[in-house]
Amino acid sequence: MSWLDKVNWTDGLVPVIAQELSTGTVLMFAFMNREALALTVETGHAVYWSRSRQKLWRKGEESGHVQKVHEIRLDCDEDVILMTVEQMGGIACHTGRHDCFFQKLENGDWLIDKPVLKNPEDIYKHE
Amino acid sequence: MSWLDKVNWTDGLVPVIAQELSTGTVLMFAFMNREALALTVETGHAVYWSRSRQKLWRKGEESGHVQKVHEIRLDCDEDVILMTVEQMGGIACHTGRHDCFFQKLENGDWLIDKPVLKNPEDIYKHE
Repeated sequence: MSWLDKVNWTDGLVPVIAQELSTGTVLMFAFMNREALALTVETGHAVYWSRSRQKLWRKGEESGHVQKVHEIRLDCDEDVILMTVEQMGGIACHTGRHDCFFQKLENGDWLIDKPVLKNPEDIYKHE
Repeated sequence: MSWLDKVNWTDGLVPVIAQELSTGTVLMFAFMNREALALTVETGHAVYWSRSRQKLWRKGEESGHVQKVHEIRLDCDEDVILMTVEQMGGIACHTGRHDCFFQKLENGDWLIDKPVLKNPEDIYKHE
């Protein structure tokens, strides 16, 4: 039995939490299918499954903002993965921010409290 | 418009990552519906939606291992919540471990590397 069979896939996917090794910051949340997880382990760089585009998403392929995988963990129900990564370029979010969780609930409203570090147009100018 | 409307609910649910305030450890992953999120904010203690039991799950109600909510964040796509919490009793996982991510991928196998701190039977003896 492969270690991939231990994962409880839902519709062929597993949710993945990416956490930054150096800071502990939760950077983003995405999904992997079996092939993406296998490729992630094989290459040492995070490969996700894009549900909107319905294809493999080699994180940072165009921007250079790849995620070097340090550790891969599975939860008690074996249906969620936690991955510790080094975020190249320091930008995980497509908005040009360090991480995706830049909206904070405060007094009944969502406030943006993290800066855009790089113009998204510059990040993806090669696309 | 309520702040609850900003969340992109999928089948009435949103995935929630709970991270420990003091250590940065990702403790667990679960879901909330609208009522659970509203109650979480109202009470200051994490309330989830149990998909298996199809009912509100007031985390720690029986065990005393409640999660005091410090901060609630929403991601760029507004479909994932990150919550920083204080984990009362130091045990977030139903297996009696500190957190749910106790299986680590190593040399093609999942190895358990976090100890059981409390017997689950003792945690839920009042049920």
